[in-house]
Amino acid sequence: MTLDKFFKPKSIAVIGASRDPNKIGHVILKNILDAGYKGKIYPINPKAEEILNLKSYKSVLDIREEIDLAIIAVPAEFAIKVLEQCGKKEIEAVSMISAGFSEIGNEDADEEIKEILKRYGIRMIGPNILGILDAHTNLDTIFIPRLRLTRPHAGGISFICQSGAVGSATMDLVATQGYGFSKFISYGNALDLNECDFLEYLGKDPKTKVICLYLEGVKDGKRFLEVAKRVSKKKPIIAIKGGITEEGSEAVLSHTASLAGSFEIYKGLFKQTNIIHAKNLEELFTFARILDKSMKPKGNKIQIITNGGGYGILATDSVSENNLKLAVMSTETRKKIKRNTSTISTIKNPIDLAGDVTTKTYDVVIRECLYDKNIDIILLIVLMQTPLIGSDIVGVISELNAQQKKPIIVVTTGGDFTELHKRNLELRGIPCFTYPDSAVKAIKAMCDYYLH
Amino acid sequence: MTLDKFFKPKSIAVIGASRDPNKIGHVILKNILDAGYKGKIYPINPKAEEILNLKSYKSVLDIREEIDLAIIAVPAEFAIKVLEQCGKKEIEAVSMISAGFSEIGNEDADEEIKEILKRYGIRMIGPNILGILDAHTNLDTIFIPRLRLTRPHAGGISFICQSGAVGSATMDLVATQGYGFSKFISYGNALDLNECDFLEYLGKDPKTKVICLYLEGVKDGKRFLEVAKRVSKKKPIIAIKGGITEEGSEAVLSHTASLAGSFEIYKGLFKQTNIIHAKNLEELFTFARILDKSMKPKGNKIQIITNGGGYGILATDSVSENNLKLAVMSTETRKKIKRNTSTISTIKNPIDLAGDVTTKTYDVVIRECLYDKNIDIILLIVLMQTPLIGSDIVGVISELNAQQKKPIIVVTTGGDFTELHKRNLELRGIPCFTYPDSAVKAIKAMCDYYLH
Repeated sequence: MTLDKFFKPKSIAVIGASRDPNKIGHVILKNILDAGYKGKIYPINPKAEEILNLKSYKSVLDIREEIDLAIIAVPAEFAIKVLEQCGKKEIEAVSMISAGFSEIGNEDADEEIKEILKRYGIRMIGPNILGILDAHTNLDTIFIPRLRLTRPHAGGISFICQSGAVGSATMDLVATQGYGFSKFISYGNALDLNECDFLEYLGKDPKTKVICLYLEGVKDGKRFLEVAKRVSKKKPIIAIKGGITEEGSEAVLSHTASLAGSFEIYKGLFKQTNIIHAKNLEELFTFARILDKSMKPKGNKIQIITNGGGYGILATDSVSENNLKLAVMSTETRKKIKRNTSTISTIKNPIDLAGDVTTKTYDVVIRECLYDKNIDIILLIVLMQTPLIGSDIVGVISELNAQQKKPIIVVTTGGDFTELHKRNLELRGIPCFTYPDSAVKAIKAMCDYYLH
Repeated sequence: MTLDKFFKPKSIAVIGASRDPNKIGHVILKNILDAGYKGKIYPINPKAEEILNLKSYKSVLDIREEIDLAIIAVPAEFAIKVLEQCGKKEIEAVSMISAGFSEIGNEDADEEIKEILKRYGIRMIGPNILGILDAHTNLDTIFIPRLRLTRPHAGGISFICQSGAVGSATMDLVATQGYGFSKFISYGNALDLNECDFLEYLGKDPKTKVICLYLEGVKDGKRFLEVAKRVSKKKPIIAIKGGITEEGSEAVLSHTASLAGSFEIYKGLFKQTNIIHAKNLEELFTFARILDKSMKPKGNKIQIITNGGGYGILATDSVSENNLKLAVMSTETRKKIKRNTSTISTIKNPIDLAGDVTTKTYDVVIRECLYDKNIDIILLIVLMQTPLIGSDIVGVISELNAQQKKPIIVVTTGGDFTELHKRNLELRGIPCFTYPDSAVKAIKAMCDYYLH
């Protein structure tokens, strides 16, 4: 079975669907409907006739039609019984939301579940998960109301997340920041399908450009090594590991019952598989942004262009600290830029266009840098506070970026006025960052991935 | 002369005031008016009769009344002449916005300016500055339109910033994030007044709780050592240094003409003076947030409380990595919490209240931790996505924080729904962070400052 049934099911049974808006079985059903799912939906509840205007069934066994995916959202003590019914109904894909298994020491139930999966040939995500989401097929089975958690628009990032809370909180945040997602997979205790299965599937998913991974423990190191190595050749994988200290590892054990393992082992694993290691959640998503949006660079020679001297200095410091190279522009480029800029500009690296820069000047300077073979990547600092830059800067940068000659990475910092322009740049496919050092760290991650 | 004339002037002359909205002399005058300055304002322009409904003068010498502060916003070639007129008019405080001096190799003018300052006993900020702002006296002399750069509300943070761009971009950003400021000082080339003078002044300023400093080079190391050591005993100073690498130092030279000096020297200087060193702009302001808002901790033993397991793990990792201590709660606290929480909760450190936590449970658990002497600091993770937490969480946390028993530091991540609650918590004086590791780094900075 391919995992397609989890992401493109033609029919879904929601086991534990409820009329009570406070029950997660209700929220899941509502979210499936609200997201605009087009297939058949079967609420399952032993007591209800109808839920959210849909006919309800006592059990999946009461349904005549075929069911592609069952979502189990009943208390742990009933989970095994309904799972067995799924088996009898020949449902091949089960998403087990229910919690209360090995993560609280309930190991016996795990064995029973495994036995049922094997007997009936069911593949399962979970238990102890938040749900899954596919922004391209409008499938939303996450058990958190859409009012509390903003769903991302369709895009190129997929997120495999062992912790539901990490997944939901960060997806909510970055969706609001305009990140586009392909798939979101919360996989909890990973009793059956685990990170390797999802890596493999997303590696082949044409909608996924970048894979983000929050990992507490790997079940099968050997397989992970093999799969990750293969997938990361096709597309970047960025991973953050929870439980990298002794104290953190202990916390992992009572969370998803995973063995966290030594951080040294994971660092080795990431290195061998060319997985990009994010040190924190912020890096996970800034790295995803650049790898989702930017073209591949030819080398690591960076030209900084700025309208704020201090920003140029901080960016320069970051370039050096991250062992990237400052480009040395050709004499011809230098002369051309000199002719087109004011006397208070500094034409070195950084090019400091100072506070009286106009959009027109930016246009000329970026263009010259795009055509200079000594430059691989343009780090473009545009502080929107300076008075002579108009909103036309968005069009200028977008047009130059559309030529796809080399990566253009933008840094812009500010309040509402800046945010507006930043959002417009991002909508046009340009990766933007708030701080110079986070942009440079992201460039470093990109260079490490493509140029290693 | 005290520096009060720069921040609480009874009258201001704007030299270079203009009717043309694109000229900085116009923008400054408009900002002074729009910010609600209550004193006398004299536009100076040789050609205008009236600017923005104010009578205009050809020179400061044409004004009969006393002038506390002159703002010079004319091209560099006229700056010396008008400065001399300020001297004749016995103006003691001059803010020199004009650029085009030593930062572009124009050293001769520097000497002339110094000579005039000495001759007339003028104190000057600048040249090559963005302007200054006092959010408590509503003085806004920054030359960037208020539409492009959000001004902060009155609060406890003061920012001494050698780079105008760093100052304007970051102040714009953090003002939008709800940070409150006392004074903002862009000091550019520091031909007369420098970072030491401002440190000294802000050290005595009752409105300033925390001093942020962006530094490219220190003019007088010996004085800096002495002043910073003294001031940092009274209130925290957080500094970021531009030009910490060889390449960055070169960029400094063509920016504010400062000698960047070796980073090792600065690290030593910061250490000796107990200045908190921020590695990037983000740290500068997250550290400022915690030091502005939080009470002083008694020790560094942290109790993590979370409703998301993965967040608890990441926070635990950060606590260990930053050499802070995980508190071990008393048996009594443990028992009390156990009685009041659900079976899927984990009562260790972190306390994981899981996804079905209610506001009421948070209330009980935080309260118990506040009264446990084994705990110095509470790191409170509240993921607003979980369905049973209501908006009443803001009131609960605020009320417990108001008891001022120990620092409560909140981490919450998400989109609009979360942002709303985060903003409400911050308005009630609780320092909030988006990511666990940035919160822990800020706690580390706070502990280093208070407990060293």
